[in-house]
Formats: sequence, structure tokens, C-alpha cells
Amino acid sequence: MKDVHALPPRHGQLDLREVGLTEVRKPISVQRPDRVVTLSASFSVAVDLPPDRKGSDLSRNAEVLAEVVDETAQRPVASLESACARIARELLARHGYATESVVTASADYFRQRGAPGARSALEDYRLYAEARATRRPDGEVSVRRSIGGEAIGMTACPCAMENIREELVRQHPELGTPALAELPLPTHNQRTRTRLTLEISEEEEVEADALLDTVEAAQSSPTYAILKRGDEARVVLEAHRHPKFVEDVLRDLLASLPRRFPTLSDAVGVLARTVSEESIHKYNVVAEHRTTLGELRARAPA
Amino acid sequence: MKDVHALPPRHGQLDLREVGLTEVRKPISVQRPDRVVTLSASFSVAVDLPPDRKGSDLSRNAEVLAEVVDETAQRPVASLESACARIARELLARHGYATESVVTASADYFRQRGAPGARSALEDYRLYAEARATRRPDGEVSVRRSIGGEAIGMTACPCAMENIREELVRQHPELGTPALAELPLPTHNQRTRTRLTLEISEEEEVEADALLDTVEAAQSSPTYAILKRGDEARVVLEAHRHPKFVEDVLRDLLASLPRRFPTLSDAVGVLARTVSEESIHKYNVVAEHRTTLGELRARAPA
Amino acid sequence: MKDVHALPPRHGQLDLREVGLTEVRKPISVQRPDRVVTLSASFSVAVDLPPDRKGSDLSRNAEVLAEVVDETAQRPVASLESACARIARELLARHGYATESVVTASADYFRQRGAPGARSALEDYRLYAEARATRRPDGEVSVRRSIGGEAIGMTACPCAMENIREELVRQHPELGTPALAELPLPTHNQRTRTRLTLEISEEEEVEADALLDTVEAAQSSPTYAILKRGDEARVVLEAHRHPKFVEDVLRDLLASLPRRFPTLSDAVGVLARTVSEESIHKYNVVAEHRTTLGELRARAPA
Amino acid sequence: MKDVHALPPRHGQLDLREVGLTEVRKPISVQRPDRVVTLSASFSVAVDLPPDRKGSDLSRNAEVLAEVVDETAQRPVASLESACARIARELLARHGYATESVVTASADYFRQRGAPGARSALEDYRLYAEARATRRPDGEVSVRRSIGGEAIGMTACPCAMENIREELVRQHPELGTPALAELPLPTHNQRTRTRLTLEISEEEEVEADALLDTVEAAQSSPTYAILKRGDEARVVLEAHRHPKFVEDVLRDLLASLPRRFPTLSDAVGVLARTVSEESIHKYNVVAEHRTTLGELRARAPA
Repeated sequence: MKDVHALPPRHGQLDLREVGLTEVRKPISVQRPDRVVTLSASFSVAVDLPPDRKGSDLSRNAEVLAEVVDETAQRPVASLESACARIARELLARHGYATESVVTASADYFRQRGAPGARSALEDYRLYAEARATRRPDGEVSVRRSIGGEAIGMTACPCAMENIREELVRQHPELGTPALAELPLPTHNQRTRTRLTLEISEEEEVEADALLDTVEAAQSSPTYAILKRGDEARVVLEAHRHPKFVEDVLRDLLASLPRRFPTLSDAVGVLARTVSEESIHKYNVVAEHRTTLGELRARAPA
Repeated sequence: MKDVHALPPRHGQLDLREVGLTEVRKPISVQRPDRVVTLSASFSVAVDLPPDRKGSDLSRNAEVLAEVVDETAQRPVASLESACARIARELLARHGYATESVVTASADYFRQRGAPGARSALEDYRLYAEARATRRPDGEVSVRRSIGGEAIGMTACPCAMENIREELVRQHPELGTPALAELPLPTHNQRTRTRLTLEISEEEEVEADALLDTVEAAQSSPTYAILKRGDEARVVLEAHRHPKFVEDVLRDLLASLPRRFPTLSDAVGVLARTVSEESIHKYNVVAEHRTTLGELRARAPA
Repeated sequence: MKDVHALPPRHGQLDLREVGLTEVRKPISVQRPDRVVTLSASFSVAVDLPPDRKGSDLSRNAEVLAEVVDETAQRPVASLESACARIARELLARHGYATESVVTASADYFRQRGAPGARSALEDYRLYAEARATRRPDGEVSVRRSIGGEAIGMTACPCAMENIREELVRQHPELGTPALAELPLPTHNQRTRTRLTLEISEEEEVEADALLDTVEAAQSSPTYAILKRGDEARVVLEAHRHPKFVEDVLRDLLASLPRRFPTLSDAVGVLARTVSEESIHKYNVVAEHRTTLGELRARAPA
Repeated sequence: MKDVHALPPRHGQLDLREVGLTEVRKPISVQRPDRVVTLSASFSVAVDLPPDRKGSDLSRNAEVLAEVVDETAQRPVASLESACARIARELLARHGYATESVVTASADYFRQRGAPGARSALEDYRLYAEARATRRPDGEVSVRRSIGGEAIGMTACPCAMENIREELVRQHPELGTPALAELPLPTHNQRTRTRLTLEISEEEEVEADALLDTVEAAQSSPTYAILKRGDEARVVLEAHRHPKFVEDVLRDLLASLPRRFPTLSDAVGVLARTVSEESIHKYNVVAEHRTTLGELRARAPA
């Protein structure tokens, strides 16, 4: 049959940066230290296209996905990002005309958690992975990967709490300032989603659970599926004892990275973003930063 | 040209309840007491289909929408639900084979609001409308309409606040129970979306603003785009002085309807739903009820 | 600690139809004939609330979900709808004040498929399940369940094809009508999503794969992840040889049910909906019908 | 009241790239050549934060939005991107500690269109705008803006059509190759969304309608709300006479820019992306490219 894709383009002899498939849903089985988990993932797979080819052989992308991903049902892969890297390399092997491939994946991920002393349950998180393979002029292929994790937690506003403290001191002179200066007081608190992404080399490894632990420690409090009355009171008080702006969440998260990931190289890229679904507004509040582990180490207190 | 739609179906000579268009986006201009507003709406328009016709003449649906909606740019319509009713009647006029038509619409809607004493801004709400026209055997057409409004507000949990009160009484015996029994104390609070829908006859009218005022009064507090420090403290304290479960929001909302809508008939259908985007959980909490204005009046305290 | 939920409501002593949790994401392991699959599901769980209680004990809902769902990792459940039924029964056992519980679940689901003669891959579908438990005055609990499956496929429009045939006959008199009357000719075709839901008793079983096979057979053609050039041509021709309106898809689907599900009772409820993401319009076209298996059997040709 | 935001951060003395509000919904009135249109827009507004401040004064962002956007109801703005630029400048004026501000907006947009010779109706598009203001060390502020437009259209696959031609030649030897080589033949066609974004200086202007016309001309065919039988056949044939891969759409779009926007400078950034919602697959196919108008001019045929 006629290979229409291999024809020259009719006009506009331009190279294109990315041609591929998006929103390909696939189950992928990943080996965890203690068990195999099956993630319901959404993939994008693309390669660049030289100026002299009309189209990209897209059925190869679907074939590579099927070979690498569908077969994890038999042989689980080590991680979402290692699956992406394998796909990215294979894409360059099969699209001989391409010099770069990009693969992204995202999936729900579950962990057994509970409030201190309380009953645990599976809590939901979100994982993100990316791999970008580049073919150098000498034919060598190198791959950069990234792994991201998002956790939902809770933030309590430090500003409203202090202003309410002043207000209550004024309204209740009988209580006395020392007493009121001690108490956790009302403030607006809300659901907050924080995502941390680390851009690593093909030799470096980041454990998804370590990423998510890091994120959860930066918010005013993690949140939980099962909270009996006493647990609920303790979680709410804990959050009110650690009131945080989105800016605080982001800085505490970034500041913790040198200690949390001591073996990663300075070149590791860091992208952090936290979104607070404000209880007192109809819109969200967001903070975002991009840096490297090296920069964070340079600023870390000795 | 051949009218394929008018042919008999090949097999399965069944009537079908609804055949139509969905997700048709259109701007619609609505006359408000003091101004004309243009809503960016999404419409669905459908009619039933008798067993002897292969297909419905769907281009007529698009024509009716264009005639009724596009032309509001010149002549604004009285309300979203009256536009739906006009479309529903016109659909039956043009689909001679149909006996029922259903039209739904939803749109963002904005109102100028501000916290008491604070600066105001446009706040966003959501409007919903539906019209259902029925052709009786004698050819007469009757229409039932519904109008819904959704507002985002804030709820503060009454349970966590009482349990935290007990906890703080235990931790701070020096403060004394009377003092602590007075104070608004921390609790989890969060963004809450509440929708109220009233099913009315073609003769009855409900003002969208009245619907949204009713919803906003039922939550722990409305929320606002602009809150300077003092305003923020007052809104948060207000919410903590009216802590509410989703159940409280829904009952307070339902209980207020006889007073808020005294001229509507007992037959008016009522659907209310509130969704709390819990700050201490990753999931939402929801309460929903369906009743009539007559039932609510029968239960209202004299 | 104080049980605030058990207090009487402050005003509005109304019962509420549904109070519960929504958008609870959980992995659930389901035993298939040949393997265990883990679905990433989203659950809603709710019960009614009597007029004399302020709030529903919602942490019990989260506990029941954790007990029934989280533990399928060890002991896979027979189906999504049987998990829902088990949860619905357990909710009534733990909410002694409730008389009705409703549980819904939805999840991506994957099946190994391929075009005839072509390479296969995992294709994605969507499953839906619901269980509704009712406590009768004598304390007995009965459960109604529903199971739904959605498949994405392709429809080709029969009307445009016939009108294009007339047009080409006019433009190409040299070809002759007999020849052109034979040929599959261009028409608009598009992605179509069709969902079939069966409402069954607690004793009846419907296999999810049977549901999805039924849906896929009703569209102009199923669609596939991997199509090499020859496969693609065959799938497209197949769809053009079975051009269908959404009305045809729905009627063919409904007409096939008596044959596909011979052992289910007449009381089984049937809800079918097909949405065509029209290639020639920016909006979607939809057809929907609700009936019973008994009604469909009464209309089936002998 | 205490200004908690102005305090130094507790730890992590890092600057942050972006702190602000997202998903702020606002109606904005824009002056078109012949009329005023009101768009229902979603805004993000953010500034950077120096290392010595705990938090950003976010209520100022909401105030600036209210002043610039809410007041367009009285004085319509020239364009969505000029509103963004005005907001970006005002943010730097009010956040004295910030050196960069970013404002984005997106909105549905409607245009009166119809198939050639057919009845017209309002068709929906999507507009995107961004402004990025930078304060230089000397205090001068410069602004870069971008404007994007997305149109839904139709693509017909050139590959499947040629392979089906070969197949039909084999199946119908009586028709003869010359005849079949002439005919538009079946292929898969589908809804395709294409977005073009131009990054311009504060002095340059791009008309949104020119952007959308450019996008619509690049697909196999635009699509329309109202198509009677004859119109539908003509639109489908038109698309089959211009079969295009996503790669063709993107290259034809890019190749047309030098001619379409002759007065814009070489430095103008160009981002183009097209997504085809494949009728024969459950996933989408995508092509994306980033370049400058200068590069495109250098490659254009003389």
C-alpha cells in the first residue's frame, strides 16, 4: 500500500517539534518494594518530524506503548518514569528520522495512611512522569527523566488567625492577652494541592513515596479518609498550630529538599507548585517556583 | 435530495425518548431590572422520536437555537428559563412527529457583592434552566420549567469546634470553662457549593437573584473576591459563629423557602444539593433532598 | 466527646434523602474469569437522615469503604456492582437510623482487542455500578443494583453519504449510477460514546464484558489503538458499510438485548445513551432511551 | 492590624517566581469594530516574591482585577490582551517588592459564520491572552503580550483515503482506475481543535478574528452549527478534497503566517498546536511547533 506519510509535504517544508498521541489510557503494573500495584495511567508519546516527511508513523507509537506498557501485566516495571524512559528510547529506535522523543504519564496512586493513633485507609495521590530522549549527531541517545508527585493536604491561614487574635483580645478583655496569645484560634483553612517534580538523569532514582512524604510534610497538615471525632479534633488543632500561606508551604518544601534527597546531583531540576482552594474566596491561590537542587543547597543554612 | 431521516428504521421499530444536540455554546443576552447581561451559555435541545422514523431532523434544533438565542443580541430575553421555554415550544412546532421536547441551559452569572463595610467586586455564580414541553392528544402544548442557581460559600464544622473546645478546656484549666464556652474556636472550614432548583409552571416567575440570595444565606458565610485584613477576620469569625454541617445548610435552606417564595404554588418542585469540599479529607461531603414547596409549608412552624 | 451529630437539628426538622461522601477514589481488585484486575474507581456512598438527627455519622461511610474496598487487595471481589451492594448493606447495618443507602462507582476498564487480523492492544472502556439498599418496616433489607458500561466507537452518517452519492452521480455521469450505487462513499464519521446500563435484582448477574460487547456491536465500527495502513482501511470501509445515525445505534443496541441477555428477567431496567462527537459540528448529537427488558421483548420480531 | 505578610519568612529565605490567584472568573466587555462583546473569562494574576517577605499582598491582585475588569462594563477595553497588559503593569505598581507580573486570561468567543450559501449562526471559539511585565533595575517596566485563538474544525485523513482507493480499485475492476482516481473516497474524519498563539510586543496588535480566520483556513474544513442536507454534503466533500494529517494542518498554518501577518516583526513568537480527536482511535493525535515569524519568513518560498 502507498506510504503517504513518507511523501514530501505539499507546502511548508518545516520540521515540527512534536507529533504524537495524547490521552492514551493504559493500565501499568509497577513493582513496589512490598507489592505490585496497577496504575490506571494516561500517556502522551511524541517525536519530532523532519521537514521532508509529510507525516509521522504514528501506529508505531501505539505499538511501542502496547509492547512496553501492556506487557507490564506479566513483568511489572520498576517505576512510571522508567517505563517512560524505555518508551522514549524505543520511539527513537523505530522512528529513524526523529531526533527527539517525549513521553509523559500521569496516574492515581494510593498509599495506606492514617492520622496518628487512628485507623488507616488507602489515600489517593497523583503521580507524574516524563522522559525526553535525544539522539546526538553520533547516534548516541541520552534521556532526561522527571518524576512528580501531588498530594492533597490542608493549609490554615496565619494572617487571619493573628487578626482574629487581636479582635478577640479587644472583645474579651476579661480573658487577658497572655491566655489568648497561647490559644490556637479560628482561621480559614482549606484543601490544598501541592506538586513537586524532580528532573533527574537516567542514572538517578527517586522513590515516589519519598516525594509524596516530602510534599505532605510541607503543608499545615496531611488529610485522611477516616477521622473519628477525637482524631478530627487533633488533625484540626495540628493544622492550626502550623498555619501556613502557600508561600510558606512552597518554601518549607523547597528548603527540605537538600536534607530529603542528599544523594541526588546539583543538576537536578526542581519544580514546585501549590494551589490552595481558598475557603473564603471562590478562586484559588497559587505559588510556583522553579530552581535546581544545587541552588537550594547553596542557600541552605549550614 | 433524499430525506434519509424520514425513512423507516431498518430494525428496532422503537420510539426513542430523546434525540438532540448537547454542549451547544451560545451567548445569550438577558434583560435584568437595571441592565442587560450577556451569558456564555451551554444548551441541550432534544425531542422524542416515533418508532416509524429513522432519524430526527436535527438541523431544525440548531435553527431554533439560532433564531431564539442568537437574536437576543438585538432583543434581550427576560430570563434563561423563558428562553428555554420558547425554544421548547418552537421545537414541537417544527418537529411535527414529536410529542415532547426538553431544553436545558447553564451559564456563569455575575453579581456585584462585598463583605459588610468592605469593597465590592463581581462574584461568580452559576445558573441552570430547563423547559419541558408536552403536546397533548388535542394538540395543546404545556410547558414545565425549572430554574436553578448555585453559589459558592463557606461552611465551618460544628462538631470539630465542640470537640476542640473540650480539648482546650482540658489543656488550659487556667482559662476556665465559661470563657472558653464563649469563644469561637478553631474548626475545619471549606469551600461549599450549594445549588437550589425550583420547578415552576409556565405562569410562575422566580428571580435568579432571589434564588442566589436564598442559597447564600444558608451557608456559614458567603465568600468574597476582595477581603482586606480586617474584612477577612470578620468573615472568618462570622462563619465560626454559624458553624454548619452540610445537613444544616440544606435544612436551613429548605426551611427558608416558604418565607422567601410566598407567592409560588404548593406544586413547585424543590431540589437542593450542597457539596462541601472538605479541608480535612480528600473527598467531598454531600447532602441532597427533593421535595415540594407544599410539603415544606406543611412542616413549617406556624 | 460530645456527639454533635446526634443532637436534634436547630430548625428545619426535615428528613434528608441523601447525606454522604462523593469522589472517594480507591483501587478495587476484581476477580475476572482468567485474572485479577485492579480498577482505579471513584465512589459515592450516602444514606438518608431522619428529621430528629442533626447530622449523619459520615466517618462510618469511610470505614465501610475501607473495609470492603481496601481489603479487595487481599480478597478480590466478584464485580464492581457486588462491591457496591455489599457496601450498601453494610451502611444500613451501621447507620441504624437510616432506611435507604445508595452507593455508586465508576472506573476505567481495559480489554485486549484488535481489528480483525491485526495486532491487539489494551483498549479502554468505562464501567459504572450502583446499589440501592432499602430497609423495610420489618427490618428486612433488599437491594437493587445496576451495572453500566461505556465504549467508544465510530459512527458514519448515512444521510451525508446518500446525498454525496446523488451529488457524485450528477458530477460524474460517465461512471454510471449502478457503479456509484455500489460504492462506499465519503460521509462524516466521528468518535461516538455509547453507554448501556442494566438495573438488575440482587440475584441476577451481568458480565461487564457481555455489556461492552453488546455496545461495541451497535456502532458503525469499534475503534482500535493499533491500526497499520491495511487495517485502518478495512476499519474505515467497515464503518462506511454500516452507516448509522445515533438513533440507529440506540435502536440496534436496544433491539439486540433480548437475544444478548436471554436469562435476565422482564423487570430489568434498561438505560441507553449514545453521544456522537460530530466531525461537522462543534456540538455533540445525543440519543437516549429508558425502558425495560420486558418491553423490548414484547416488541421484538418473533 | 498586624501585617503578617510583611514579616520575614520563618525558614527557607528563597525568592518565589509566582504567587497569585488562579481561576478568577469575571465578565469582561471588549470593544469590537462593530459592537461590544461581553466575554465570560477566567483569569490568573501573579507576581514574584523577594526572599525577605513571608507573603504576597494578594488582596491587591483582586482589587486590580476588579478595577480593570469589572469597570469594562462601563468602558469596554480594546482587547483581552490589552486588559491583561494593563493589569500586569498595575500589579507591579502596587506590589513595590515585585519585579515581574504575569496575567493570563481565557474566554469563549462567538462569531457569526455559515457554510457557503447556507444560513449562518453564532459559532464558538476560544481566546487566550497573556501579559508579562518586567521591572528593570532602572525602574522602567516593559511588557510582552501573547494572544491565542482556538478553532474547532474537521480533518479528513489522506492516508486512509489512498489505501481505500487501492482497495476499491482491486474490488471494482469494472470501474477502472481513471474514474476511481478522480473520486473523493471514504476516509476517517474527525473533530480537530487548532490553537495559534502569537507573542507580540506591547506596540504590536493582532486582531483576534484574523487569528481565528488563519486557523480555520488550515484545517480540512471549518464546521458549522446549521447544515441542511445539501450544505452538509458540500462541507463533507470539501473536507474530502482537502484531506490533511495534523502535520499538514500545522505546516499549512505556519506557512500562511508571513502572508497573513505582514506587518508584525520578525521577533514575534509563534506557538501552534492541533489536536485531532481521531474517529478510528480512542486517543487523540497531536502536532505542536514553536518558532518565530522571522524563521518562518526565512523559509517561505520567494
